[in-house]
Amino acid sequence: MAGEKGVVLLDVWVSPFGQRCRIALAEKGIEYEYREENLAEKSELLVKSNPVNKKIPVLLHDGKPVCESLIILQYIDEVWPHKAPLLPSDPYARAQARFWADYVDKKVYECGTRLWKLKGVLQQEAKEEFIEIAKTLEAELGDKKYFGGDSCFGFVDVALVPFTSWFYSYEANAGFSIEAEAPKLVAWAKRCKQRESVAKTLYDPEKVHEFVGILKKKYGVE
Amino acid sequence: MAGEKGVVLLDVWVSPFGQRCRIALAEKGIEYEYREENLAEKSELLVKSNPVNKKIPVLLHDGKPVCESLIILQYIDEVWPHKAPLLPSDPYARAQARFWADYVDKKVYECGTRLWKLKGVLQQEAKEEFIEIAKTLEAELGDKKYFGGDSCFGFVDVALVPFTSWFYSYEANAGFSIEAEAPKLVAWAKRCKQRESVAKTLYDPEKVHEFVGILKKKYGVE
Repeated sequence: MAGEKGVVLLDVWVSPFGQRCRIALAEKGIEYEYREENLAEKSELLVKSNPVNKKIPVLLHDGKPVCESLIILQYIDEVWPHKAPLLPSDPYARAQARFWADYVDKKVYECGTRLWKLKGVLQQEAKEEFIEIAKTLEAELGDKKYFGGDSCFGFVDVALVPFTSWFYSYEANAGFSIEAEAPKLVAWAKRCKQRESVAKTLYDPEKVHEFVGILKKKYGVE
Repeated sequence: MAGEKGVVLLDVWVSPFGQRCRIALAEKGIEYEYREENLAEKSELLVKSNPVNKKIPVLLHDGKPVCESLIILQYIDEVWPHKAPLLPSDPYARAQARFWADYVDKKVYECGTRLWKLKGVLQQEAKEEFIEIAKTLEAELGDKKYFGGDSCFGFVDVALVPFTSWFYSYEANAGFSIEAEAPKLVAWAKRCKQRESVAKTLYDPEKVHEFVGILKKKYGVE
C-alpha cells in the first residue's frame, strides 16, 4: 500500500492521544496520511502494527510502527529536529518536561473520565481531584506563556492541550468551572488554540460533549 | 548538606523502581550517596524534592531533583553518555525500547501485586495475565542475550530486571512457575544477575518474599 511508505497516522478524531501526534506533526510541518480507525472494527493494519495494545494512535514511518503517544512525540522530535523542538536540549529540563507529560498521562484523562462516568460522592471526589490536578498544572505553568517557556510551545503543551477541548464536557457533567479554579490554565489553553497546529486539530467542545453523551449511553450512565 | 551536592539517591531497598536507578548508576560507574527512606515517615528532603508524588526514587543531582524511575534512567543516560549507553542512538530503536519499558511499567508491578494481594478467581485471573505478560516479554527478547541486543544490557533490561527478584514470591503466593511458562525470560534474568551492577543491587528472593509477607499482613491478606 502506497500509504505505508512515508508517514501514516492511525487515529480516531476525538482522541486526545492521537491529537498530540497531529499537533506535533503540524508543528514540524510533516506531511502525512491520516487514517481514521473504527475502534469497533479495528483495521488489520492497526492490529498488526500494535499487536500488544491494539490501540490508536500508531505512527507508521516507512511502514515501521511507533506506538504510545508520548513515545511517538519523542520519536517525531528525534527524527525531525530541524523545526519546532518539543523537548529542550538540557538533560535536566528534558527530565522536567517528561515528568509533567507523564503527570498529564497518569492523571488528566483518568480523572476526567470519572467526571462524566460517575455520580454522587464518587463524582464529587473526582471533581476535587480534578481541581487539584488543574491547580498543580497551573502552578507548574506559572507566568510563562507556555509550559515549554515563553518562546517554546513544547512537549508538555502538546501533551496537555488536547484535553482542554474536553473541559467543557467535564464541567457540564460534573457541574463546576475549571476557569474559576485555574484561570491561568484556561488562559494558557486559549493561547494554545491561537496556534494553527492546535486550532486545526482540536474539535469544538460542543462536539466533544456530544461524543461524551454517546459514551455515556454506551456505558449506561444516566 | 554535603550530600545534596553531587549525586544522591532517595530510595527504599526493596523498590524495583529504585533498583533500576541503582543498576544504571552502577553500570555508568557513577558514585553517589544512597539514602534509605522510611515511607512511614518520609524525610523532608523527599517531600520537598517530589512534592507532587512524594514517592521514591528521587535522584538529586547537585541538589536538583529528578523523579520517576524511567525518567531518571533517561536523565542518567543523557548526563553520563560516556559509558554503558542505555538507549540506542537510532530514533526507531529508542522508540521501541521506550515502548517496552513503558509496557513493564504499566503491567508487571501492578499484575505482580495482584498475585500476592488477591485470592481465588481474582488471583487466578492475575496469574493468567502474568503468564501472558511473561510470554509477551519473552517473545520480544527472542534469542537475544539482552533486550538491548547481544552486546547491550540496555534500557528495557534495567527497567525489567529488578522485578525478577519478586518472581519467587509471586510464584509462592500464586502457586505457579514462571520458568515453566517463560523459560527464556528466566534464563535472561539469570544472565543479568551475573552482572556486577545487578548482583550487588538485587536482594535474595527469600528476603523479598519475607518483605511481601509483611505487606500481606499490612493489607490484611490471609
